[in-house]
Amino acid sequence: MKRISFFLLAVAILAGIVAYMPHASGQSDGDSSPIYGVKIPAGYRDWKLIAVNNLLIPGKVDQLRGQFGNDIAIKAYKEGTLPFPDGATIVAIHWNRVPSEFNNKVLDPAFPGAQSLVVASRMNIQIMVKDSKKYAATGGWGFADFTGEKPGDKALHETCFPCHIPAKDHDYVFAHYSP
Amino acid sequence: MKRISFFLLAVAILAGIVAYMPHASGQSDGDSSPIYGVKIPAGYRDWKLIAVNNLLIPGKVDQLRGQFGNDIAIKAYKEGTLPFPDGATIVAIHWNRVPSEFNNKVLDPAFPGAQSLVVASRMNIQIMVKDSKKYAATGGWGFADFTGEKPGDKALHETCFPCHIPAKDHDYVFAHYSP
Repeated sequence: MKRISFFLLAVAILAGIVAYMPHASGQSDGDSSPIYGVKIPAGYRDWKLIAVNNLLIPGKVDQLRGQFGNDIAIKAYKEGTLPFPDGATIVAIHWNRVPSEFNNKVLDPAFPGAQSLVVASRMNIQIMVKDSKKYAATGGWGFADFTGEKPGDKALHETCFPCHIPAKDHDYVFAHYSP
Repeated sequence: MKRISFFLLAVAILAGIVAYMPHASGQSDGDSSPIYGVKIPAGYRDWKLIAVNNLLIPGKVDQLRGQFGNDIAIKAYKEGTLPFPDGATIVAIHWNRVPSEFNNKVLDPAFPGAQSLVVASRMNIQIMVKDSKKYAATGGWGFADFTGEKPGDKALHETCFPCHIPAKDHDYVFAHYSP
C-alpha cells in the first residue's frame, strides 16, 4: 500500500512538473506560445466558420475577423454545449479592413457613397485550445497569439485570459455562432 | 442520313426549349430563382470560407458578408484557376452588422471608444453557380438571391449579371480569397 501511495505521489509530482513546465519557462520554443505552449493547428484556414465580426479601436485597430472551429468546437456551437469539451479549438484570423477602390468605383454609380471594405493583410491570429486539466488555472483554455509564424511574447500572453474573463458565461469565448 | 439529321434537329430543339425554359417562365417555382432556376445548395454554411467583407451603402445597407465555396470553387481559388470550372458554386451570406453592447462594455476600459461590431440576423444570401453552357448568356453563371427560403423576384434577378459585369476580369466574381 505504501509503495502504491509513493508511486501515485511520484506520478502526481511528475504530472505537476510537466503541467507547470510551459508556465515555468515562460518562453516560446519558437513555434508555440509562451505560458501555454499552444502551436498553430494545421489546416485551420479550411475549418468551418464560426463567426465574422469587425473590431474598431480608434487610431489602433480596424479589423475584419473570422473565427474558425475544429470539428469539436463546431459541434459544441451547433448543439449549444457549454462548457466547450476538451479538444475544442478556435482560431481567429484578424485581417486589416481596407476600402476596395475597385468595388467602390463600380458600385458608386448605382449606390452613391457605397463603401466596400475588404481584407488586406493579416494582422495576427489568436488561438484557444480547450484542455480543462492542463489549463485549469485559465478557465480550461490555452491561448496563443501569432503574427505570421511567430508567437507573441510572454507579456502579451499574460493579457489573454484576463481579457476573456468577462465572457465567462459563454465559457470565456466572445464569438457567438453567426447563423 | 435524313433520319439522323431530323433526330439531331429534334434533340437540338428540345435542348433549346429545356435550356430556355427557366428564362421563358421568369417565375420562381418556389424554391429556385427566377430566370436561372438556382436552388439553395445543401450544407453551404459548412463550406470553406472564401472571404469576409463589409458593405456600407449610406442609409441602406450595413452588412458583414462571408462568401463560402464548394470544393470546386475553393480549389479554383487556391490554384488561381480562371475562369472558374463548371460546378463551382459560391454562396454569400449577408448579415446585418450591429454593435455588440456586451463586447463594447467590456472592451472600453482597456480600449476607450472600442467598437465591436457583430452579425445580427441575415439579410439575404446570394448564390452563383457556374455552368458555362446553360448560362452562356450571363458569363457562364446562374444567379440567385434568397431572403430566408424565398427567392427574390424576376426584376431583382435581372440586376445580378449587369452588376457583376465590372468583375469580368475575375470571371464576374467580386470576392477574392481572404489569405
